[in-house]
Amino acid sequence: MSAALSVSTLSEKHRPTLDQALEAIRSRAYWSPHPEHPKAYGETAPADGQAAFEALRGTRFDLGQPGTDDWTGSEVSPYGIELGVEYPHVDADVLLPAMKAGMAAWRDAGPEARALVCIEILSRIGARTHEFAHAVMHTSGQAFMMAFQAGGPHAQDRGLEAVAYAYAEQVRVPGQADWSKPQGKRDPLKLDKRFVAAPRGIALMIGCNTFPTWNGYPGLFASLATGNPVLVKPHPRAVLPLALTVQVARKVLAEAGFDPNLVALAVERPGEGIAKDLATRPEVKIIDYTGSTSFGDWLEANARQAQVYTEKAGVNTVVIDSTDDYKGMLSNLAFSLSLYSGQMCTTPQNLLIPRDGIATDAGHKSYDEVVTDLAGAVNGLLGDDARANALLGALVNPDVKARLEAAAGLGEVALASREVANPEFPDAVVRTPVMVKLDAAKPDDSAAYMSECFGPVSFAVAVDSTADALELLRRTVREQGAMTVGAYTTDDATERALEEVCLDESAQLSLNLTGGVYVNQTAAFSDFHGSGGNPAANAALCDGAFVANRFRMVEVRRQA
Amino acid sequence: MSAALSVSTLSEKHRPTLDQALEAIRSRAYWSPHPEHPKAYGETAPADGQAAFEALRGTRFDLGQPGTDDWTGSEVSPYGIELGVEYPHVDADVLLPAMKAGMAAWRDAGPEARALVCIEILSRIGARTHEFAHAVMHTSGQAFMMAFQAGGPHAQDRGLEAVAYAYAEQVRVPGQADWSKPQGKRDPLKLDKRFVAAPRGIALMIGCNTFPTWNGYPGLFASLATGNPVLVKPHPRAVLPLALTVQVARKVLAEAGFDPNLVALAVERPGEGIAKDLATRPEVKIIDYTGSTSFGDWLEANARQAQVYTEKAGVNTVVIDSTDDYKGMLSNLAFSLSLYSGQMCTTPQNLLIPRDGIATDAGHKSYDEVVTDLAGAVNGLLGDDARANALLGALVNPDVKARLEAAAGLGEVALASREVANPEFPDAVVRTPVMVKLDAAKPDDSAAYMSECFGPVSFAVAVDSTADALELLRRTVREQGAMTVGAYTTDDATERALEEVCLDESAQLSLNLTGGVYVNQTAAFSDFHGSGGNPAANAALCDGAFVANRFRMVEVRRQA
Repeated sequence: MSAALSVSTLSEKHRPTLDQALEAIRSRAYWSPHPEHPKAYGETAPADGQAAFEALRGTRFDLGQPGTDDWTGSEVSPYGIELGVEYPHVDADVLLPAMKAGMAAWRDAGPEARALVCIEILSRIGARTHEFAHAVMHTSGQAFMMAFQAGGPHAQDRGLEAVAYAYAEQVRVPGQADWSKPQGKRDPLKLDKRFVAAPRGIALMIGCNTFPTWNGYPGLFASLATGNPVLVKPHPRAVLPLALTVQVARKVLAEAGFDPNLVALAVERPGEGIAKDLATRPEVKIIDYTGSTSFGDWLEANARQAQVYTEKAGVNTVVIDSTDDYKGMLSNLAFSLSLYSGQMCTTPQNLLIPRDGIATDAGHKSYDEVVTDLAGAVNGLLGDDARANALLGALVNPDVKARLEAAAGLGEVALASREVANPEFPDAVVRTPVMVKLDAAKPDDSAAYMSECFGPVSFAVAVDSTADALELLRRTVREQGAMTVGAYTTDDATERALEEVCLDESAQLSLNLTGGVYVNQTAAFSDFHGSGGNPAANAALCDGAFVANRFRMVEVRRQA
Repeated sequence: MSAALSVSTLSEKHRPTLDQALEAIRSRAYWSPHPEHPKAYGETAPADGQAAFEALRGTRFDLGQPGTDDWTGSEVSPYGIELGVEYPHVDADVLLPAMKAGMAAWRDAGPEARALVCIEILSRIGARTHEFAHAVMHTSGQAFMMAFQAGGPHAQDRGLEAVAYAYAEQVRVPGQADWSKPQGKRDPLKLDKRFVAAPRGIALMIGCNTFPTWNGYPGLFASLATGNPVLVKPHPRAVLPLALTVQVARKVLAEAGFDPNLVALAVERPGEGIAKDLATRPEVKIIDYTGSTSFGDWLEANARQAQVYTEKAGVNTVVIDSTDDYKGMLSNLAFSLSLYSGQMCTTPQNLLIPRDGIATDAGHKSYDEVVTDLAGAVNGLLGDDARANALLGALVNPDVKARLEAAAGLGEVALASREVANPEFPDAVVRTPVMVKLDAAKPDDSAAYMSECFGPVSFAVAVDSTADALELLRRTVREQGAMTVGAYTTDDATERALEEVCLDESAQLSLNLTGGVYVNQTAAFSDFHGSGGNPAANAALCDGAFVANRFRMVEVRRQA
């Protein structure tokens, strides 16, 4: 390869990172090469990042892609500002063949070179984390600090995790093997065997509105690292962070001597719905999708020519049985319910509380006391507007606001939502969460708690007993799926019963979180995001299954 | 576990085998713990095995399964004898819940105990290889030696390979991890994390007629080793080898303290077609299938609640460009075309030969000479009836015979099929292969060579050039799929071009085989069977993707 960026340079720079990532996915101990703190990026980084973001506004984002037949873009920040960026609209009949042109060379480069190039892409993205943070903030509505962390280092972690899994999976089989089968007194049978990881074809990554990078990077990098070209189709409201990603990837690929068209961007006109057309193109062999259950199900049913990885909707439950840290429980839950206005696929929705109350270190607490105290904890956490803005972010779209407002009609409101003013962005729609009391014994209530109400809405569901809570948990996960399950209990038997339900129904369980880790957060290299075993998602981030079918091992054997 | 068979006993006995298997799938060097030679099984084994098989005839095969509502069985050996064995017909509404009852204990036993129990099952099957050989012979029509080897040690190898892959995949994540995230001057955030491989649910293994054990064991053992109960639905003409397998598995499970209903048998009445009903049951979460493209496609489209692994039909090609061992090539191909009367999914069908002939170490050979010499090599190989019987076996069903007879009408017959008498089994239908000349330049010929003609039928297709052969190869694999591709060439550029086509289309390539390894044979632990990347199969035996999605990793995390 005669290129500005040689494999040996990349190896020197990134092989240690790859090795550490490989070790981290084995040990699942804490590890990240991407600093979480904005100050770690240098003194001028905040201003530079903001300036870079501002400079993008009102421009045409030209990636130099083949098959660009128009320009489109209509992003308006949940904080009220128009981004005004125009992106390429593609003619798939021209772009897709161009994306395949560089596939053979990318395949022939092998797993290590591909991993190193992917890490270089992540490393350049990492250097621009402040710029990405603004882009994520003004597309998702996340508050700056969350946009910085979740959209920056945490997303980069998930991308690197996918690269590590992809690399490990491809090198499980050696590149070459000598096979010699004894034949008694005759000469052994001998074969030379060569094994090549062969990509499947074009991978389509369909991004989401709320976490364009965090949910997008695993699929993007898993596909690219296994040799597949990747077409990125962002959510029309959250294009910029992925457009920047594609731009960086194309530049690195070109510098490393590969075809930049191995990564491309496809942006749709308002209401155009290009995802269905792209997803069923015969060239598209892999699809990653995060979003609604209805479209995820549609993809699984219709994009039959492709391997389809979906993260859809679920109903997340917290079982509240007992606690030896009542205050810690309340503050932990209050944070979980408030963060990003509950607009995370991992935010708890149903809090199952025995109607006779629970045992705590602060004495017995009735159902009403638990609900009131939790409402108080949320109000305390969000009482200060500056802090509320920093935690809540903005509502990502009008549908969330409508659901929030409708929720008050579903039952007795235990925690009313209030409007929070945002002095910096007066047009931002910022709301504190609502909590509604429901009763598992009332059949009419089940329609509410047995479906996802995405946004800052939770239900305090009274149950007859913890045993009933476990049964409802089981039914909810089995029928509706769940990205997360939380539980508080001081009872060993209850703990075992909770684990049993979660193992039976393949749900990820967080027990007795009362400190600075929250049920809605997962850490790359250690925690799995989703399980792939219940209706909320058909894949987990990241495991062997997430990468193993993105390539096929092709063998060439010859007589030795 | 208080059981006759303890994990520590099993570990002492089988852990070294597991470790060797794990090393073999890494190095892909030759390895097998299962002796290929009938004499390796002891002096009395042949007579004992035959007696055991004879003793099964005309009996009721009672497995003691719940939900047995009838008895059925109508196997008639391709060698002409009626087996007369009756098997359980099942009431799925009773059997399936019973199969799930032991799931939690099997899951909780963990990956190593499950692997050891699986290896004990394989080891007991191994000890009865002579008995299994007769069962495979008299259901598949394979000649005894092939039934012995392919149905015995080679099938056991493939089963063990699946166990090794399943084990390796489950232990990639540790059972437990301490996670500690630094927080600057504050105390680190600490979590205890436990990771459990959780099974998906009931696995349905749908067996085939020709290789009930070889094609059945990978799915059966991959599912069982990953914690899933397995319901075995054999082909109605090839029940006995799998019924014996289920019997052994149930006995070992019970001795090891597990529920024997973790493995069960479902046999259908003639024409009942229970596979569709079972495959779409909500309890069934995994399906392994070997058989027709039409039913494989049906499963992929309709059994949407399950992970579906299929091996379907393909059209296997051999490109004949040139050779430096003409005699070796002819004898190698003659054997490949003859073995088990071409009734292997890996048997070559289309031999692409340039119409201007090929360069060989024996001088230039015209298309006609190559075809005539290959026909001569087949006739030479099968000239002696005893040898012909030992190689050909019997035609597995009347459809194969019908196709063989119809093939003669498709073009000029270059090699005529002849009837071979079998003195031991006078009713066996034994036929030598037919080879028909076709021409790629004649549009009418393509219908024949562009579809699978399963059985002892091959087409010598004249092509304009090796370049045309490569294009036809590419089109054939892309449109029809292929389990194998073979090629003969002395030209480096042609070799590279062949590899390129096979890498592009995910086909397994054997180059210049002229000795004792044949294109239709793959060795477990080293060769992949199929690629999972072309229409012939959606999975390969065995790789990470074959096992990784049969379980999900469930995490339980708690504050430390």
